[in-house]
Amino acid sequence: MKNTKPLTDLEIAHQVELKHITTIANKLGLDSEEIEMYGKYKAKLPLDKIDKEKVKKGNLILVSAISPTPAGEGKTTVSIGLSEALNQLGKQTTVVLREPSLGPVFGIKGGATGGGFSQVLPMEDINLHFTGDFSAIEKAHNLLAALIDNNLQSKTNNLGIDARTVSLKRVMDVNDRALRNIVIGMGGTGSGIPRESGFDITAASEIMAILCLAEDLDDLKKRLGNIFVGYTFDKKPVFARDLNAQGAMTALLKDAIKPNLVQTIEGNPAIIHLGPFANIAQGTNSVIATRMGMSLSDYTVTEAGFGSDLGAEKFFDIKCQSAGLSPKAIVLTTTIRALKYHGGAALDTLTTPNVEALKNGLPNLVKHLENSRLYNVTPVIAINKFITDSEEEIQVIRDLAERMQVRVALADGWAKGGEGALELAEKVIEIVEQSTEEFCPLYDWNMDVVSKIETIATSIYGADRVEFSSKARKDLKTISNLGLDKLPVCIAKTQKSLSDDPTLLGRPTGFTLTVREIEIAAGAGFLIPITGDMMRMPGLPAHPASEKIDIDKKGNISGLI
Amino acid sequence: MKNTKPLTDLEIAHQVELKHITTIANKLGLDSEEIEMYGKYKAKLPLDKIDKEKVKKGNLILVSAISPTPAGEGKTTVSIGLSEALNQLGKQTTVVLREPSLGPVFGIKGGATGGGFSQVLPMEDINLHFTGDFSAIEKAHNLLAALIDNNLQSKTNNLGIDARTVSLKRVMDVNDRALRNIVIGMGGTGSGIPRESGFDITAASEIMAILCLAEDLDDLKKRLGNIFVGYTFDKKPVFARDLNAQGAMTALLKDAIKPNLVQTIEGNPAIIHLGPFANIAQGTNSVIATRMGMSLSDYTVTEAGFGSDLGAEKFFDIKCQSAGLSPKAIVLTTTIRALKYHGGAALDTLTTPNVEALKNGLPNLVKHLENSRLYNVTPVIAINKFITDSEEEIQVIRDLAERMQVRVALADGWAKGGEGALELAEKVIEIVEQSTEEFCPLYDWNMDVVSKIETIATSIYGADRVEFSSKARKDLKTISNLGLDKLPVCIAKTQKSLSDDPTLLGRPTGFTLTVREIEIAAGAGFLIPITGDMMRMPGLPAHPASEKIDIDKKGNISGLI
Repeated sequence: MKNTKPLTDLEIAHQVELKHITTIANKLGLDSEEIEMYGKYKAKLPLDKIDKEKVKKGNLILVSAISPTPAGEGKTTVSIGLSEALNQLGKQTTVVLREPSLGPVFGIKGGATGGGFSQVLPMEDINLHFTGDFSAIEKAHNLLAALIDNNLQSKTNNLGIDARTVSLKRVMDVNDRALRNIVIGMGGTGSGIPRESGFDITAASEIMAILCLAEDLDDLKKRLGNIFVGYTFDKKPVFARDLNAQGAMTALLKDAIKPNLVQTIEGNPAIIHLGPFANIAQGTNSVIATRMGMSLSDYTVTEAGFGSDLGAEKFFDIKCQSAGLSPKAIVLTTTIRALKYHGGAALDTLTTPNVEALKNGLPNLVKHLENSRLYNVTPVIAINKFITDSEEEIQVIRDLAERMQVRVALADGWAKGGEGALELAEKVIEIVEQSTEEFCPLYDWNMDVVSKIETIATSIYGADRVEFSSKARKDLKTISNLGLDKLPVCIAKTQKSLSDDPTLLGRPTGFTLTVREIEIAAGAGFLIPITGDMMRMPGLPAHPASEKIDIDKKGNISGLI
Repeated sequence: MKNTKPLTDLEIAHQVELKHITTIANKLGLDSEEIEMYGKYKAKLPLDKIDKEKVKKGNLILVSAISPTPAGEGKTTVSIGLSEALNQLGKQTTVVLREPSLGPVFGIKGGATGGGFSQVLPMEDINLHFTGDFSAIEKAHNLLAALIDNNLQSKTNNLGIDARTVSLKRVMDVNDRALRNIVIGMGGTGSGIPRESGFDITAASEIMAILCLAEDLDDLKKRLGNIFVGYTFDKKPVFARDLNAQGAMTALLKDAIKPNLVQTIEGNPAIIHLGPFANIAQGTNSVIATRMGMSLSDYTVTEAGFGSDLGAEKFFDIKCQSAGLSPKAIVLTTTIRALKYHGGAALDTLTTPNVEALKNGLPNLVKHLENSRLYNVTPVIAINKFITDSEEEIQVIRDLAERMQVRVALADGWAKGGEGALELAEKVIEIVEQSTEEFCPLYDWNMDVVSKIETIATSIYGADRVEFSSKARKDLKTISNLGLDKLPVCIAKTQKSLSDDPTLLGRPTGFTLTVREIEIAAGAGFLIPITGDMMRMPGLPAHPASEKIDIDKKGNISGLI
């Protein structure tokens, strides 16, 4: 992308002299005995540092985005740059981010630790195993899966589960398309009951979603026990607790529940913790991490995945409602290239100035701005700057902002670190200090399921109506029978469009949202209406990024993107 | 077993006031900045502390055992007790152990951190994820597997691998029999090439074996590149390096290669690092860990899995030869109950005194003693004491030792910690200080493959002859064609008998060892002649141990065994 710059992210990261993690902890008022170090530059934070009174009064800033191009629009980079800038302006700020998934690091996408001069460090560690959170989730998930198959074939301890109804797959944090659809339990009577199953990537595990919403170990255990597993032959629902799985699963997650502390390039604290996919789950870091950031800092900057129709909607309606959070401002990460794409320009022409395409793409931005106002949260447009952006193009967005009476700022944290995001930080401070608006969610969880889905579809996506397949209608009945209809909905939808059709760019109107089926995430505590084809296990490209990754004899890694 | 004792291992562990890991590191001459802490009680040790001169002169003690009963005879407990006792006697000693596998913790077997008053701590952490080494191996292994399947279906980057020849399975550290035999790649053209495959438990990964033999990062990378993957349709061998996998795999293992420091109950240093199954791989901790122990201490006590026919044989012939180690003594862990079992007593009668059965079982012990002398390593019998052992029974073993002119000592570290192993420690010191014998391996790696197998089978197992199946004969030809016939052999065999027939107890004679097939572990650098049915993915029992494991709201775990 910004490929005229000579240095890679990894090279920039390697130029930084890292501070000892105890120094970073000190900035949060924690001494070295209060944290659990993982080497010199990573640490786990203890849950007892969460201060609910401070969380209530805290200044929480959500970084979201317009509908992204396949490359993403740089929310993490903007979040880090903004956090550096706020710290430069004297606001004690922590950026609270999602933890990268390992699988994509070896595929196309690469890591997820920001870019350029707005990164969290040490990027190799954060992008590889970090402190083992994803591995712990994998083990807890796959233990439950093994307990189910073990029960299916057990003679003395059999719950009578109908193997054909088992919905829980296994998970692995590797991009491995060959594991999407598999047949397990082959090899005769000693090796289980043959049945269809598959693997999802670990970030798609319900346990990831659960851990992100859990308040503490007890709440975690309760939610894990509530995972819906399938039905008995008598059509009775089976939950993880029926397999006595929740205690061992919680024990496996005893460290994963604690948020991780690292540092930004400018030596400010960054908390990184979990975060499932925003197209199929809530797509933001853990409630515990966000609360930790707010407990230990005056300003907390966090992000939610994909466009505001996905991550932000779920952040507001699920996470904020569940955890009692009131965000003060929403930063809408916007790129000139993405708006040109929404305005009809081809993907390979986005680095060429094209004011007309840009203007045609503006309705996408407008819709995301309108959406944020539905929550009573004041937006600010952050133009994530690319060196190919022309002054004229930037002015087009500034003009729009003026027309809409929305704040706007150029964000160039990528090239300049915090200094590049000072204008954005000033606007954010203005909103926080001047705004009198009070966050309100879009819908009441007590509404019926269909109404909840329709509210999101029409208000946020801009759909005319919602259609439910016969499978979805059957699922609605099941949900009602199980008494789960008061759960919020976490719609699985493509991130490429405001609609459920990835080819409809800009601001689609007059469309029908089609709900194919509705999954039950009883442990996480939400329902997942599925629209379109959602992929939960990515594949590797013809030339995987792994081919270029290397490490020398001193342990220096190269080729990570 | 010793179930009249009121306290569980976990309860004993919880009574210990742990020392900060920096205090333990100080005992090894390392300051806090030289180690990488993982919380307050675990740390990674830096590879540059290995001192090859010190390793050459070090006192290395191997703890092995007679042929075990299904419950195991307590090598880890004896190793820890001996190490405590040596420290009590003024010898600066480190115990270097294998890292427990997570899967069995939730099955029948439980953890592997010693028992009673001879434990390594914190046992919950060591038994659960510890520092993430197994997870890293899993990711490196499964990345390679994903790269293979990705290549199989790639249009532009295809090596022409014949899917039917791919020998590499995937791995997961969960006891999950339903994953032993699976069909992957189903679901149409977007999801890979359908083929048979399966999962092994992570400890059975060739990468575990490789990491245990690797000298450093460079050597690790070379070995990973040498993993044999299968054949092309043109019958050309394909290695991991042909997929450019070794760089990324090594990057994933950059921390897993570093040994872990923890403490014993008496606050002495313990190094715990990796360790694959001794029935299918070399079954001992890493070369790096053993060298680290020897570099930082005067005495190093280590263990090798199962009976001396498996772990010790491979320790001597593969690990010691590969790493240039010269063990000074071998401790043969012996239990009265196992010898009674070998002498014909039923498993459920082993707690009842039975001198006759014991005497009938002695030939098993005699054979293991004779074997150690084939390596010129002086043995000492450690009678791992159980409260059900009678004085008369103990005397039977003492009498045998006298007849054979072998040292013998009661080891009661389980009940008394180091104090219970003082007699054993004194005998070990005698051997180390007085012995003039020099370790020599059993066979020369340059011998042909059949001769290597025959040497082990006849000298160590006591077989009359070796029979090769037609598959094994074909494998011999392949090995020769690939130029891999100078590799040592790592025979996969049941641990239950000195022979390949688990029902032949005591000291079997006149039997034929049947080699079913010979696997190539070109990365690890050995060949695996397989005898009998070797299980690489355990299952869970009807009532898995996981059902009893729990954690309270403060994070205290219960029910771990």
